[in-house]
Amino acid sequence: MSYGDAMNARVRSEERRAEIVRAALEVIAERGYRGASLGAVAERVGLTQQGLLHHFPTKDALLVAVLQERDQWDALPDTRWRVDLLASLVEYNAMRPAIVQTFSALLGESVTEGHPARAYFTGRYTHVRANMAEVLRAEYGERLPSGLTPERAAPLLVAVMDGLQYQWLLDPESVDMPGAFRDFLTLLGESPG
Amino acid sequence: MSYGDAMNARVRSEERRAEIVRAALEVIAERGYRGASLGAVAERVGLTQQGLLHHFPTKDALLVAVLQERDQWDALPDTRWRVDLLASLVEYNAMRPAIVQTFSALLGESVTEGHPARAYFTGRYTHVRANMAEVLRAEYGERLPSGLTPERAAPLLVAVMDGLQYQWLLDPESVDMPGAFRDFLTLLGESPG
Repeated sequence: MSYGDAMNARVRSEERRAEIVRAALEVIAERGYRGASLGAVAERVGLTQQGLLHHFPTKDALLVAVLQERDQWDALPDTRWRVDLLASLVEYNAMRPAIVQTFSALLGESVTEGHPARAYFTGRYTHVRANMAEVLRAEYGERLPSGLTPERAAPLLVAVMDGLQYQWLLDPESVDMPGAFRDFLTLLGESPG
Repeated sequence: MSYGDAMNARVRSEERRAEIVRAALEVIAERGYRGASLGAVAERVGLTQQGLLHHFPTKDALLVAVLQERDQWDALPDTRWRVDLLASLVEYNAMRPAIVQTFSALLGESVTEGHPARAYFTGRYTHVRANMAEVLRAEYGERLPSGLTPERAAPLLVAVMDGLQYQWLLDPESVDMPGAFRDFLTLLGESPG
């Protein structure tokens, strides 16, 4: 194989991998991870299951790729986040229900025994809480107007984002997710009377 | 069969049903609903699968019983809730991780396509948001100190409860669920400066 052929093969393989990850995202949104089968993912991209195993040798390897893909989407360097950008992120999420659905389903499953995404989510929340505390510190200093420290406000901020996603996915007509999140940010930023 | 025998048979059948529902709660906490099998539930209570089908003819019928059981636990009449009792409920939940795990797993699954608990959760959240709005109205009147209406604060209250449960289940050492929820109640009750 020439150098050019090898490059082409590599690009094709990466494109194929990306296509498989997108299909896996859809299948997980529809059935959850435990309900998802490699066969269903393979079928969606026109591969045999054997062909899919060439790219991802196990179902868990595919899950890892899906979670890494997730981390790409919100890939603003940690130091670049600001409170107003969080509101924009929630606005953006409201336009991509399938992706929110995939990760809400995975988060729910992750609390069951021995789930392969559990360690990912535990680590992710430790990181996200610390990151959000820094975002709040940059905005408000060592105390928010309410008197809470950034470290005590951070889990609430994260909980509101996650909790609103479930309510919104279940009933998008009744729940204004971005509006409710802005209400919460207002609440966080107000000083007590 | 005498009247007494019939009564005894009925009591035994109800006890057996309650035992099956408890076993189902455990199996769902461990594997999620889609991952749970009737065989695993039957085995846990020492029944054959056929014997279990006598009490619950389908897996979905068992799910309905589990969800009804859940509604029993929080069964304070809607008009009796007060904001301080919500803090007590969260304290209480922190002592029953298995039950919180079952319902967090079910809530997560419920957003996947055609899940049998989806309608239950959609209806439940409509009801819970309305109920929480009344609790907040009884405490604060038509405007909370922050200026939010009870209807706008209610989805945030519910989101914080749910979102904190995931963070706490994933990392009980790092997340003080009752303390964080009390922080949120303080935030809700404070008036802006």
